[in-house]
Amino acid sequence: MTEELENIEVELETLLNKNSRKRFRKLFLSLHGYEQSQLFAEFDLSQRKLVYTFLTPEELANVFDDTEEDPVEAGKYLDEMPPAYAARLLTEMYTDNVVDILADMRPLARRKYLNLLRAEDANKVRNLIHYEDQTAGSLMTTEFIAINQNLTVGKAMQQVKQGAQEAEIITYIYVTDDYGILVGVLSVRDLITHSDEEAIATIMTSRVLAVDVNEDQAQIAEQVRDYNFVAIPVVNQSEKIVGIITVDDIIDVIDEESAEDYSHLAGVDTQDVTRNPFKTAFKRLPWLITLLFMGMITATLINHFEGLLAQVSVLAVFISLITGTAGNAGTQSLAVAVRRLAMNSHLKIWRLLLNEIATGVIIGVVTGLCVWLMVGIWKHDLVLGGIVGIAMASAIFVANLAGSLIPIGMEKIGVDPAVASGPFISTLSDLTSVLIYFSIAQYFLQMFIH
Amino acid sequence: MTEELENIEVELETLLNKNSRKRFRKLFLSLHGYEQSQLFAEFDLSQRKLVYTFLTPEELANVFDDTEEDPVEAGKYLDEMPPAYAARLLTEMYTDNVVDILADMRPLARRKYLNLLRAEDANKVRNLIHYEDQTAGSLMTTEFIAINQNLTVGKAMQQVKQGAQEAEIITYIYVTDDYGILVGVLSVRDLITHSDEEAIATIMTSRVLAVDVNEDQAQIAEQVRDYNFVAIPVVNQSEKIVGIITVDDIIDVIDEESAEDYSHLAGVDTQDVTRNPFKTAFKRLPWLITLLFMGMITATLINHFEGLLAQVSVLAVFISLITGTAGNAGTQSLAVAVRRLAMNSHLKIWRLLLNEIATGVIIGVVTGLCVWLMVGIWKHDLVLGGIVGIAMASAIFVANLAGSLIPIGMEKIGVDPAVASGPFISTLSDLTSVLIYFSIAQYFLQMFIH
Repeated sequence: MTEELENIEVELETLLNKNSRKRFRKLFLSLHGYEQSQLFAEFDLSQRKLVYTFLTPEELANVFDDTEEDPVEAGKYLDEMPPAYAARLLTEMYTDNVVDILADMRPLARRKYLNLLRAEDANKVRNLIHYEDQTAGSLMTTEFIAINQNLTVGKAMQQVKQGAQEAEIITYIYVTDDYGILVGVLSVRDLITHSDEEAIATIMTSRVLAVDVNEDQAQIAEQVRDYNFVAIPVVNQSEKIVGIITVDDIIDVIDEESAEDYSHLAGVDTQDVTRNPFKTAFKRLPWLITLLFMGMITATLINHFEGLLAQVSVLAVFISLITGTAGNAGTQSLAVAVRRLAMNSHLKIWRLLLNEIATGVIIGVVTGLCVWLMVGIWKHDLVLGGIVGIAMASAIFVANLAGSLIPIGMEKIGVDPAVASGPFISTLSDLTSVLIYFSIAQYFLQMFIH
Repeated sequence: MTEELENIEVELETLLNKNSRKRFRKLFLSLHGYEQSQLFAEFDLSQRKLVYTFLTPEELANVFDDTEEDPVEAGKYLDEMPPAYAARLLTEMYTDNVVDILADMRPLARRKYLNLLRAEDANKVRNLIHYEDQTAGSLMTTEFIAINQNLTVGKAMQQVKQGAQEAEIITYIYVTDDYGILVGVLSVRDLITHSDEEAIATIMTSRVLAVDVNEDQAQIAEQVRDYNFVAIPVVNQSEKIVGIITVDDIIDVIDEESAEDYSHLAGVDTQDVTRNPFKTAFKRLPWLITLLFMGMITATLINHFEGLLAQVSVLAVFISLITGTAGNAGTQSLAVAVRRLAMNSHLKIWRLLLNEIATGVIIGVVTGLCVWLMVGIWKHDLVLGGIVGIAMASAIFVANLAGSLIPIGMEKIGVDPAVASGPFISTLSDLTSVLIYFSIAQYFLQMFIH
């Protein structure tokens, strides 16, 4: 909250405590819905109960529509309200937001609120609530403006005026035929710049992009981003328009998807906001323990070379240097491949792979040479330096290759490559690096017998 | 490109080769600007030269405005056009997009195009081009609708109709006083639902959120996301409205910022699209070599314990297990802290830190116990198992702590915490883990003398 808003909060709370309905309404209603929702969340129970008498359900609906809070919180507020007030509030809210709140409730509570609604509104909610999460159906709202293609601009304008208060966004007006099938789109700009007698069918754009109710949210977000839409219509299997998805919900999807990618790269759910350290720990542990087993394989591998290590104990000095650097190179290559695959659906995969292979060779050779010099000078032993350098170059090359091959392979078998995580690549690269390092050391030491 | 669009491409190219201007125009102009821009990018030079004669500059401006391509490409297309055609095209485009193209040109080329423009347009571009990258000024466009507060709804509607063709978005109409100072906002919805005689000043919202021309894009994106705006006005130091930023540009900012965070976590610029493996390698190498030096410090640390290693060579077996697992835990903790700091500007930092400390203890203890059992059973040596287990628990605790302390510290000194990278944390944790491991081993082995 900004400082200005914090001051307003103090003022509003004073007004609530003084029971000054009129002055509270004046100040509160001068704010934007999002600000109202932030302030509302700061009020305590007794203050909120007063708010339910100060504001009409219509006014509070605006607050609930614009909140960025967890829908579960909104559900708790509903329980505090007089049932009739809650019912009216839900009726006034946009259907997509009502669905978000009710979807997170227990079945019994949900049924209670559905029964409070008018049959028509309850049905709208019931129709939307069963759509699978992360699909168009779960994101869309049913408050949109659709007009018949046979209207004139003047008649259409009348309908838009009537529908304007209800609709979530009026930038686009969708055009349907007599059966409700989506046949065109026009902007409110088109309406106001054309004369009243013109026919809608002649001024509309008949190439209208729509998404299916079952389409995945990530795909929809990509379309809205590329086409610079403010809203996109949703159609059912018979091409009838059933809802719209507005750009504000698309932004939330983009945020959610990018947080997911980030989480996958780190091997942890960064969106989880629980404050209980036990819960947090037990969410992070499965992945860590899985990788621990992989690490144990690496340990048995080193164990296999214990004879060599006992003979040339200096080899142990460079284990973490080699595994660490190769892991870093692998993580870089993984991240590049994942993003490249996500951004560009008609990417030439062989090109990406060849490019990564060449990059791996160059990075490996340069780093290997550095290490050869550093170790050679430090230990006065160019053979040891050579072993570490060649092992480093090979380990980097393999980690780099794995970093791109794994996401590419996942894409090929239809798994989202973003699931591949940095910790997985670096743990895998520990294993390959150790194998490479000791194999090379064994081979060279046999040749040079120190 | 979708299959449908690929078919259209074939058709369009045939029409170009047959020189059928009329049919080309009909098909091409039926498409959305973004689709047009995708197709245009597929044409070769001779086809493009034909397009410049088939389409008017006004029509091609639409294509250029809706492209998601690199502005550098657009600059190349301009060079192919007859100068007068290019000038007209630039005049018709939205100023923010013209600025993007000209900003990426060499000074000489930029001056050439500025001279081609009408003085008025060239000045608009000159005014915008000097704004620093990633600020409101560099994102805004000057095509917006502003009306005087003394107008009536009817008069305002006339002005909106006149300005509608030029403006990038007409969802919001900004209201100014006689000096151009922003005093209110209303939506086109308000205009069409109020009667013509009403005064603008009485129906507008006088609480209008605006951003300063120099404000950072990440902050602006956060506001637009939270408030669900479709556009946000930009004001100069004297509160005069100088431009607007539209939601499509905000989406690009959100994409850019999240790609940056992802890149930082991986320690590589994933947005770099060069296809030259040498260039790619030399962009990734600086970070790898820096971390290599840190890895060398870890190597000298292990070297310091070489006597111990020579005596108990089995210790080497578990180096990579401990460094790897601690590194993974550190990466998780880093990612959580970075996201938490980014998402929530009034976060209680001590709470985050205490939570991470507790989580680190739990994860450390559980993982340590697992390792104690695994190593103890495998090596039939519960003391060795205990050493590795305790070292593991301590190394995880330290890595976890570093993973949250480093971004918190960066936030405190005013550096963007997102810059902290996973490879850095895991390389740092290699160092601390090795130190912890060998210190614990030395201490215990002295006690138990094998």
